[in-house]
Amino acid sequence: MRSSKYLLCTLKEDPSNAEVISHQLMLRSGMIRKLASGLYTWLPTGLRVLHKIEQVVHEEMQRAGAIEISMPVVQPGDLWQESGRWEKYGPELLRIKDRHNRDFVLGPTHEEVVTELVRKEISSYKQLPLNLYQIQTKFRDEVRPRFGIMRSREFIMKDAYSFHLSNESLNETYQVMFEAYCRIFERLGLEFRPVLADNGSIGGNASHEFHVLAKSGEDDIVFSDGSDYAANMEKAEALAPTDELESPTQQMQLVDTPNAKTIEQLVEQFNLPIEKTVKTLVVVASEEADSELVALMVRGDHTLNEIKAEHHPLVAAPLQFASEEQIRQVIGAGPGSLGPVNLPIPVIIDRSVAKMSDFGAGANIDGKHYFGINWLRDLPLPQVADLRNVVAGDPSPCGHGHLQIKRGIEVGHIFQLGDVYSKAMNATVLNEQGKSQVLSMGCYGIGVTRIVAAAIEQNHDERGIIWPESLAPFKLIIIPMNMHKSHRVQDVAEQLYQQALDAGIEVLYDDRKERPGVMFADAELIGIPHTLVIGERSLDKGVIEYKSRRTGEKVEVAIENAIAHIQSL
Amino acid sequence: MRSSKYLLCTLKEDPSNAEVISHQLMLRSGMIRKLASGLYTWLPTGLRVLHKIEQVVHEEMQRAGAIEISMPVVQPGDLWQESGRWEKYGPELLRIKDRHNRDFVLGPTHEEVVTELVRKEISSYKQLPLNLYQIQTKFRDEVRPRFGIMRSREFIMKDAYSFHLSNESLNETYQVMFEAYCRIFERLGLEFRPVLADNGSIGGNASHEFHVLAKSGEDDIVFSDGSDYAANMEKAEALAPTDELESPTQQMQLVDTPNAKTIEQLVEQFNLPIEKTVKTLVVVASEEADSELVALMVRGDHTLNEIKAEHHPLVAAPLQFASEEQIRQVIGAGPGSLGPVNLPIPVIIDRSVAKMSDFGAGANIDGKHYFGINWLRDLPLPQVADLRNVVAGDPSPCGHGHLQIKRGIEVGHIFQLGDVYSKAMNATVLNEQGKSQVLSMGCYGIGVTRIVAAAIEQNHDERGIIWPESLAPFKLIIIPMNMHKSHRVQDVAEQLYQQALDAGIEVLYDDRKERPGVMFADAELIGIPHTLVIGERSLDKGVIEYKSRRTGEKVEVAIENAIAHIQSL
Repeated sequence: MRSSKYLLCTLKEDPSNAEVISHQLMLRSGMIRKLASGLYTWLPTGLRVLHKIEQVVHEEMQRAGAIEISMPVVQPGDLWQESGRWEKYGPELLRIKDRHNRDFVLGPTHEEVVTELVRKEISSYKQLPLNLYQIQTKFRDEVRPRFGIMRSREFIMKDAYSFHLSNESLNETYQVMFEAYCRIFERLGLEFRPVLADNGSIGGNASHEFHVLAKSGEDDIVFSDGSDYAANMEKAEALAPTDELESPTQQMQLVDTPNAKTIEQLVEQFNLPIEKTVKTLVVVASEEADSELVALMVRGDHTLNEIKAEHHPLVAAPLQFASEEQIRQVIGAGPGSLGPVNLPIPVIIDRSVAKMSDFGAGANIDGKHYFGINWLRDLPLPQVADLRNVVAGDPSPCGHGHLQIKRGIEVGHIFQLGDVYSKAMNATVLNEQGKSQVLSMGCYGIGVTRIVAAAIEQNHDERGIIWPESLAPFKLIIIPMNMHKSHRVQDVAEQLYQQALDAGIEVLYDDRKERPGVMFADAELIGIPHTLVIGERSLDKGVIEYKSRRTGEKVEVAIENAIAHIQSL
Repeated sequence: MRSSKYLLCTLKEDPSNAEVISHQLMLRSGMIRKLASGLYTWLPTGLRVLHKIEQVVHEEMQRAGAIEISMPVVQPGDLWQESGRWEKYGPELLRIKDRHNRDFVLGPTHEEVVTELVRKEISSYKQLPLNLYQIQTKFRDEVRPRFGIMRSREFIMKDAYSFHLSNESLNETYQVMFEAYCRIFERLGLEFRPVLADNGSIGGNASHEFHVLAKSGEDDIVFSDGSDYAANMEKAEALAPTDELESPTQQMQLVDTPNAKTIEQLVEQFNLPIEKTVKTLVVVASEEADSELVALMVRGDHTLNEIKAEHHPLVAAPLQFASEEQIRQVIGAGPGSLGPVNLPIPVIIDRSVAKMSDFGAGANIDGKHYFGINWLRDLPLPQVADLRNVVAGDPSPCGHGHLQIKRGIEVGHIFQLGDVYSKAMNATVLNEQGKSQVLSMGCYGIGVTRIVAAAIEQNHDERGIIWPESLAPFKLIIIPMNMHKSHRVQDVAEQLYQQALDAGIEVLYDDRKERPGVMFADAELIGIPHTLVIGERSLDKGVIEYKSRRTGEKVEVAIENAIAHIQSL
């Protein structure tokens, strides 16, 4: 490709409104342009990268035995009524009406449509297992789209759906897809980790997220330093401390704490170690609880894990924090003065809290705390559960090593759905006994557009993107210096360009009338892995200068060996 | 691909509600399934064909110098306001609101979005010409979707848009794209014709449609048998008869025709040759006419060409036929009794009508006609224009040969838009003199999904589809007969399947436990060009039976030569 015939669109200035580096670099390197909030046009350079990802995903899906189909973007609302998601899915589901006033949605995902297809087409266990996939445009009406294509409204996803007679078969395909996902991210040259994930409100048996590691990631992911255990923050279990409960050394006393409404204030004003404080959070109770509200308690230096809390049978899902008004009405004190002593609602404490002694907590009287509280002596031990987020250094739940926390960008998610959709939509087949049986389902997503951004977050420097070979929009850029003043430079450049094309190398030939500095800056900004620089001075020596984008290494190669050198890299 | 691991989905029965053969065969051969009115899921077999078309289109677009981009499906309404199409485009434009109540549309086409991109990114004539294309999902909310994917609501289109400083440059790119389109349809193995088309209300300089010839086509296309002139019916010019106006031989007389309200009744009841009758159609006048209505007249055996009528300066665009009430109010007679004599509104007659003598027409009095009317003697000659559709046998407007009419399916349309969008949206660049200049634009569409249906309309027999090699979902199908009773058949089948895969042949291996008859029927229905049949009897002779789908020809080939035979075809 000649730059003069291409749509390069690089920007010298940092674009305003781009909060993360991948968004900045995608705009500056001319990969995307914003059309409206959360809607982006892919320019040629961006699209070339996107197609590379799609190609790898296609190959690995087919290797995993998945068959490609293509379902419509616009989906009938009645299928979503049938699955129950018409009501449950929030305003991210863009509901539309056609000219006949019939309900449709712009598909954010395709469980309903694929289940509708399979229940009509598949009637016998002999046709199973079946794994169908597509790479397709999706729409999610994000309330606040941001970070460019990392969290856009329209995006491209690879979504696959597998159908099975048994959970064993589902497990097998799940494992095959897990391995396919690992191969995809490996082939794309990304540093990634699969982590255990929570199945959330959907239920089902197993779920893994695939994260590209990057400091700017939105998610915390948790690893053991002593095994291959990895989970996302929602899922990572915080073990109970193994120490025995210590014996009391202090009397419980009521203390005036008029200016301590937070743990931080309490610790500061009363010289109390934060590990000796308890934080109380009040949430709406489930129907199972004999109460309107439930109190959740974690150690002062810990944070509540809302997903874990939501899974507790006494807690209403989705999790809903009580308002100050509700709290005052039921407990008689404000949220800044709550604690376990004399609390008139059910209490669930975190495993760590259960091992605390001589600790301080609100007295359920405004402006007062109890210090020196001890379980069993001062009050009975309440229900204990894993309620908190793990912290770095916690023992790994696998029993080996300690936990580390890194930041990740979620680019894939695989899920054993079980019969959630197939049951709601009555997707059955005849089993070996000739009886009707509800199908088991798995679903497997990859955020294809998002991978582009994640790869950049992981591969850049102050001058621009540094593409892994497998993702680079071009493998090689040929930069002739001041070609319009030198026929010799131009001749060699044209000659090398033709050789590169003949060798099947994806090459950008920068034939613009620009200063060398502009060309070098653009090449580094776009992140093309290999550069050949052609200049009068090096031609005098019969050589071309080669430069590597990643290492910055410069080598002189003989003109006649230049393309062979690129091929050897 | 093994059938047992594939989603074959063939149907034995003819599906109801499929009016055209391509729709029937696409359903029966398992290429598509209907999700809702005008919305189809592409099953694996259909998608394989679709991808072949996309690949050829990509290659030829790139060869033509077009650069690929990808614009969003969801487009901001304000761009459509700016171009004026928010108002003009009918209910086929699906207008939607996002969660913030902002206006968007589901893109049926992308002139607005691409013009927005180019006006922001391109500032100098040096960056021109520029030709951008995409292959993308579009949505058109058809009032009555039908014929399967031939007229669906969601469909895939290749749309390209070119930008120029001058009309000369536009002409050049237009010619390059014209040739690229011809190559695409040639490579796809389709019998097609590019035809001159009308630019319609958009204006501009030139336009061609590309039609796949098929008896079931919705459009009439017109050819000369003496030159390469071809046009669609809207555009094809009907020349004026070269004969002199004949002298009157009859007196004009008023005749009672109480039971003749149509030309057919008049001809039948009064033994009048139909070429001696005139049909009068009354339409709303343009502002230019000094009248509310205008009368258009064509010979009794001709039909009005509405596009030609609409282009006449005295006729309002879009064309609107007057109601019977309007006609009675202005003329004082009903639509069945109209004619040129004593008509109180402006009259435009077709070129053929101007050469008529001794003819009959309504008297503008209910139940009465004049017979023996002659121009000049009985009334002055009104305005003359080309108003009718051509008929087979008309002289070609190119001056060579006569016209023939065939049916076609429109699969492509290229268009010189000129400055229609760029002017409305103020898309300018600085020209060589440093002055701001409005861009010239071309647009170029191909109905990618529609090509699939058109190819089937042109290539089928009573047993199913007959794919051209370039479009076939598989090149080869291997059919083992009663393999589950014969290890030898199974061994040879597996061996040939492996050989075919190794040779890079796209092969379907029908390893289902089905009767041979079912397998043969499916193979012919799906339309795979080449079949290898493996049976005990032929194996005894050391041969395999080869069968061609298109010719039906059967050949016995030695087992060891079977795959080489397929490769040689």
